[in-house]
Amino acid sequence: MDVTPYSCMTTEELEREYQRVLADFEHCKSQGLNLNMARGKPSKAQLDMVSGILTMLQTPEDCIDDGIDARNYGELAGIPCARAYWADVLGCKPSEVFVGGAASLNMMFDVVARAFSHGLLHSPRPWCKEEKVKFLCPAPGYDRHFQIGEFYGAELITIPMTPTGPDMDLVEEYVKDPQVKMIWTVPKYSNPDGIIFSQETIQRFANLKPAAPDFAIIWDNAYCIHEFEGDYVPFPDIISLCAQAGRPDMVYEFASTSKITFAGGGISCMAASEANIKYFTDIFGIQMISYDKVNQLRHVRYLKNKAHTLEIMKGHAAIMAPKFRTVAEYLNREIAPLGFAHWNDPKGGYFVSLFTMPGTANRAWQLCKEAGVTMTNAGATYPYGKDPQDSNLRIAPSLPPVAELEQAMDVLCTCLKLAALEKLLNK
Amino acid sequence: MDVTPYSCMTTEELEREYQRVLADFEHCKSQGLNLNMARGKPSKAQLDMVSGILTMLQTPEDCIDDGIDARNYGELAGIPCARAYWADVLGCKPSEVFVGGAASLNMMFDVVARAFSHGLLHSPRPWCKEEKVKFLCPAPGYDRHFQIGEFYGAELITIPMTPTGPDMDLVEEYVKDPQVKMIWTVPKYSNPDGIIFSQETIQRFANLKPAAPDFAIIWDNAYCIHEFEGDYVPFPDIISLCAQAGRPDMVYEFASTSKITFAGGGISCMAASEANIKYFTDIFGIQMISYDKVNQLRHVRYLKNKAHTLEIMKGHAAIMAPKFRTVAEYLNREIAPLGFAHWNDPKGGYFVSLFTMPGTANRAWQLCKEAGVTMTNAGATYPYGKDPQDSNLRIAPSLPPVAELEQAMDVLCTCLKLAALEKLLNK
Repeated sequence: MDVTPYSCMTTEELEREYQRVLADFEHCKSQGLNLNMARGKPSKAQLDMVSGILTMLQTPEDCIDDGIDARNYGELAGIPCARAYWADVLGCKPSEVFVGGAASLNMMFDVVARAFSHGLLHSPRPWCKEEKVKFLCPAPGYDRHFQIGEFYGAELITIPMTPTGPDMDLVEEYVKDPQVKMIWTVPKYSNPDGIIFSQETIQRFANLKPAAPDFAIIWDNAYCIHEFEGDYVPFPDIISLCAQAGRPDMVYEFASTSKITFAGGGISCMAASEANIKYFTDIFGIQMISYDKVNQLRHVRYLKNKAHTLEIMKGHAAIMAPKFRTVAEYLNREIAPLGFAHWNDPKGGYFVSLFTMPGTANRAWQLCKEAGVTMTNAGATYPYGKDPQDSNLRIAPSLPPVAELEQAMDVLCTCLKLAALEKLLNK
Repeated sequence: MDVTPYSCMTTEELEREYQRVLADFEHCKSQGLNLNMARGKPSKAQLDMVSGILTMLQTPEDCIDDGIDARNYGELAGIPCARAYWADVLGCKPSEVFVGGAASLNMMFDVVARAFSHGLLHSPRPWCKEEKVKFLCPAPGYDRHFQIGEFYGAELITIPMTPTGPDMDLVEEYVKDPQVKMIWTVPKYSNPDGIIFSQETIQRFANLKPAAPDFAIIWDNAYCIHEFEGDYVPFPDIISLCAQAGRPDMVYEFASTSKITFAGGGISCMAASEANIKYFTDIFGIQMISYDKVNQLRHVRYLKNKAHTLEIMKGHAAIMAPKFRTVAEYLNREIAPLGFAHWNDPKGGYFVSLFTMPGTANRAWQLCKEAGVTMTNAGATYPYGKDPQDSNLRIAPSLPPVAELEQAMDVLCTCLKLAALEKLLNK
């Protein structure tokens, strides 16, 4: 194998390499693959592993907890045991938890939707009455976060990610602008970089003194207990940190069991100050009757508490870790020696964030597609779906079995090389 | 028992009756009751009856339907078999169904919320940009419908109910006003009057030619198969009727299993034209990943189809009918001879709508509360919670067992009399 970095090759060498990689690519295409590394979908093995949850509730008596019948109306904020469960997982109080349905995203959306239509707890007016509203978007980040801001016409401002979390110097500077109303974060195993915000970063979030009285931190703790390598990494409770720093109502935390039990049938939560929970419970009281409490109880009976859930997470880790090792092996063997790309090496979460040669991510994505491998759209990890460097690709290796993943990574590596060579050779 | 109507009594006779009823009331209070006829909550017997649903899915294989794994992400509009199930129940097409979570109210709210923030399919602009938005509210009606309009600042216009549905002459007149954007209906066993809209009323709805291009009929078919006396009453598909009349996108229909399986853990649906389903699927794609598909599949496996669901509804009817008979018996025996009130005699739904002596509903509600019987707030069945006649009370007899219901009805009848007598005697 040629181990000269592309940057050290002569044009002639590059041309030879191009012909070789092009042949590889044609070979990939000829296999008629149909593989998907686009979304952080759990694999069938993971879903099968938690089948016990299906039969946790079997009789009417099973459906009653502490005198509350989960099958009937009532308990808008969730059955007490489910609020207590999430408080245990996140390190906050049960009174700071509102339990949701299958998608935490829906509650994040609702927070933004209500902020625009009616305002948040400390809003002087609904955000739709503001001349302009700006959202800070650490990027690479989660496309669905950015889309919500775009849907409501907020101006999305990119904040670069660093190895310790978002660039907090920039964040602290931007929040002096009263039009800056919100920041989106995934504080543990960030999507897609897999970064755990450092203690200092977290404290700087809690210490923020934004000009907007209703500035909101969306703390999407989607991967709060989602280690696949090494021990569980303890994580501070952002709600009490914000309270200690004097802005108790500034943060809205979210979590779900989408990657603990069933992505298509889990439960979620919003955690926030008691004042915020009251504010939103009043609004949710107009919006709905309650989320599915039978499923809440089913989950609590199965997951029991944080300690037992962490045991279940070890089962997920055993399935996930070999897949991430496969990704790393391919990238280290096929791409690292060529020197035109770098990537992260996460210990948890669902993604590998790959930075390929600037100006070639979209082309590599397109080539993958031609060869039957679906990746998350290039650019999706940036506001408005536009990566200014056209460099970042999000690899989601959780769904395919390892054998398929190897095929997909082979295709991806070939396409990364081909796109880089096309660029270097002005093809 | 005195059978002279109050209107025919002399002041002296009224005073004697007052002292007698007051003594009854004091007796009621002394019992220290704590009974609830406030909400259309299913009873424990009804919930127990459908326990089979808890164990419909037990293995990984059970969770896969037609190649689709209900446990994983995907199928935003609902798994195909659940869309087909609702289409069967409502008489529309599967492609006209979006399957929701535990509360259909949440999707109604979302339709209104999106109308205000972004507009509906044919909106020239978001409703929040309109100078004024007016909602037609047939009343007595469902308080939670009215609250959604109030929350968004719409002007609520009361439309009187008739025995065949809302006063359609008025509706046809009002929709000439382009500011009139929406009407709220419960077309079968209306809440609380228990009225089934007549064929003529339904056709006049479909034939509406509102001035607003984005006028929306909320067709909340909450009790679409909820007969408790007599056979299932067939009901036309409003979506195809609107299409035939040339306004296919004017209607948004809703239904749920809240009163078929579990009020706290059912599934729901929105049915509308394919164009509307596409419009909202695009929006819901930003808002969430999907509603709980495992519960959708659990429901389809248990309920099977419309025919089988109608069999299950007979079980509910067997539990519900004696309760409605109890209500009727008490009212017919205790109140009818006194001539100051009238009420409906529904064959389905969850409520009895009682019109007591004008100016006394609130007082009767207050007296009930003092005697330990919780009723839906007087006035709740009218926009802004204000019944101009102060006459309507909604009786929800489904939750208490018959023995408790008898106690509650005894209290209610006493309080109705006492409030009427206080009024007649200027007490």
